[in-house]
Amino acid sequence: MTDRTQTWRVTHQHTIEYEVVNSPNLFHPQNLSLLSAGKTQNARRFVVVDTTVYKNHASQIRSYFESHQIEAQIYPFPGGEENKTPENFISIVRALDAFPIHRRDEPIIAIGGGVLTDIVGFVASTYRRGIPHIKVPTTLMGYVDASIGIKTGLNFDGHKNRLGAFTPPQKVLLDRSLLKTLPRRHILNGVCEIIKLAVIKDIELFQMLECHGSQSVDSNFQDEQGGIILDRAISGMLEELQPNLFEEELARKVDFGHTFSYGLETRHEAHLFHGEAVLLDIVLSMLIARSRGMLSEAETGRFFNLIAALGISLNTAILDTELLWESLEERTYHRNRLQRVPMPNGLGECIFLNDICRDEIESAVKNLEDWIAIKHDHI
Amino acid sequence: MTDRTQTWRVTHQHTIEYEVVNSPNLFHPQNLSLLSAGKTQNARRFVVVDTTVYKNHASQIRSYFESHQIEAQIYPFPGGEENKTPENFISIVRALDAFPIHRRDEPIIAIGGGVLTDIVGFVASTYRRGIPHIKVPTTLMGYVDASIGIKTGLNFDGHKNRLGAFTPPQKVLLDRSLLKTLPRRHILNGVCEIIKLAVIKDIELFQMLECHGSQSVDSNFQDEQGGIILDRAISGMLEELQPNLFEEELARKVDFGHTFSYGLETRHEAHLFHGEAVLLDIVLSMLIARSRGMLSEAETGRFFNLIAALGISLNTAILDTELLWESLEERTYHRNRLQRVPMPNGLGECIFLNDICRDEIESAVKNLEDWIAIKHDHI
Repeated sequence: MTDRTQTWRVTHQHTIEYEVVNSPNLFHPQNLSLLSAGKTQNARRFVVVDTTVYKNHASQIRSYFESHQIEAQIYPFPGGEENKTPENFISIVRALDAFPIHRRDEPIIAIGGGVLTDIVGFVASTYRRGIPHIKVPTTLMGYVDASIGIKTGLNFDGHKNRLGAFTPPQKVLLDRSLLKTLPRRHILNGVCEIIKLAVIKDIELFQMLECHGSQSVDSNFQDEQGGIILDRAISGMLEELQPNLFEEELARKVDFGHTFSYGLETRHEAHLFHGEAVLLDIVLSMLIARSRGMLSEAETGRFFNLIAALGISLNTAILDTELLWESLEERTYHRNRLQRVPMPNGLGECIFLNDICRDEIESAVKNLEDWIAIKHDHI
Repeated sequence: MTDRTQTWRVTHQHTIEYEVVNSPNLFHPQNLSLLSAGKTQNARRFVVVDTTVYKNHASQIRSYFESHQIEAQIYPFPGGEENKTPENFISIVRALDAFPIHRRDEPIIAIGGGVLTDIVGFVASTYRRGIPHIKVPTTLMGYVDASIGIKTGLNFDGHKNRLGAFTPPQKVLLDRSLLKTLPRRHILNGVCEIIKLAVIKDIELFQMLECHGSQSVDSNFQDEQGGIILDRAISGMLEELQPNLFEEELARKVDFGHTFSYGLETRHEAHLFHGEAVLLDIVLSMLIARSRGMLSEAETGRFFNLIAALGISLNTAILDTELLWESLEERTYHRNRLQRVPMPNGLGECIFLNDICRDEIESAVKNLEDWIAIKHDHI
């Protein structure tokens, strides 16, 4: 018997392509965006809608599909991390299976916040080995962050996104009028991700937030400047995501604020929103950067002024060095054994640190109260 | 408020690359294939092994990892379609989570048949949004078919592979000595997929089966000609898979035998193996092709002679026109509303049919017994 030692090398270029589109009046019958991908004759759509959004828009959504003679099954689903479970995933799959839709040209539609678009995205990733899906974010966090990338996911046994996939949507449709009814806490939740981008890569966005952020927050981003800020945040986010969609490069600017926040968010009883945890992380990171001389006193003050101007209060009581350190260790492991923590090196500029030590975190926690208490007049 | 109508187009080229490698004596400590992908210092591996394979090779597998100081967790898992469930998927994820491995450079290893590599592949597709995996097929079906492509999957509510993903393995390692202990029924199960390739695209492979197939079956493909047949089948399979890894093209030669078999396999109490259902499908397809004049009497006879020579008996009693027709309809829907049934147009050549009608199926079922009964001397 000969030992045959043939090797076959399989190579394939897979093209990923999707659109993120500003599409005002999304549920107006004359707006065809929701139907523009997929068939529209004798067609069906499975539509998962956030329960709160559905309360506000049920008749609009129903009549949209009716007016186009699309047989739509609306599946209301509540937001909230606690609902991002394997059990709910299975329930959605079962409902879809019972409807059902065609796997190639009847995309499922996810209308809701990040939790909803993540779980529905995971259904789309796995149902019949992948079906197209369209995301319509209805929270600011979804709008500027969760919906425009290709990550889908579920929580599992207390771990965030322990199951998931990288699966591009067919389209992401943005209608910021859907943000109109959001509670202020949800608006600020999304603002934290905009601040993240501003600090780590976009000084102009930072200036926009300084000049107009407060007014945009007050109007739930329904003002013209709010639209400009959102567009700029999305452009910046996609600029970072596009070349690294599958996160083969582990040093990512958009991970700014996502190192210590991991522990704050998952293990603490404070029930922080994602953005709230991210901002606490950012605040600590600013102080670490400051202590290393990577930010000036003036820059750091300018940042704290912005936070105050936007009306964001920080729940600093929950900061615990041990928890933060463990979170950094976990993320270091996740990022293949290097910290790779993005840090501002001057406002709007980024470098990656691999040598953050426990003491720096402890000092940052200690100094934080002082920084918040002081009125900064450095600008 | 201005209606901002910006569109962002995200495009990305994703490179898929993996190797299928003949690697004899896979569990010999000097064979480094199993460890060649991923880290080997202070390293861990999560290894899912078919329970029967583990009975035969436990000490070999254990000492392989021990000799390389790899901390390996062996997770025995039984084969069989009935075990390809969401519940078992969750159990594997939970065990992996409790171990655990590093998500980037400690690939999980799947050693078993198609069911096992499919479910472990699905774990790899979804755990932490994707981790690398290595497949080691231990059934002939896995060896020439299930393991060398990128499909992963689970059954769900009685539907085959209703959940799954297209996820390339990091490596597929082939050691045909693992086939040595397979029962004859399992060998013939895999042979059906080789016959499929031979009939639909490779007349030389067909001739090899005619000349040496029977002997290779008897030796569980441990003979030299058996090795040549396997290599050729794998080359042919990969030739078809590589340009269409994600099945964007729905007309696929490798779907030959996978139209009527779908119904036979999932809905009948006969408990057919996959290959057995495929061969019944092929046999009916040959008769449909014959009745259309796409195969000569001689070619059709040659095919039936091969089946007989390989010692395969056909369970024709379960053939039911209604079931077969429904299966075709289901597949037609699956293939986006066109039948796209690959059919031999002369042995070794393929065309796709979109107009198979119920009567043709009925005739094929009727004529089948006659064809099996006759001794064909056409070659």
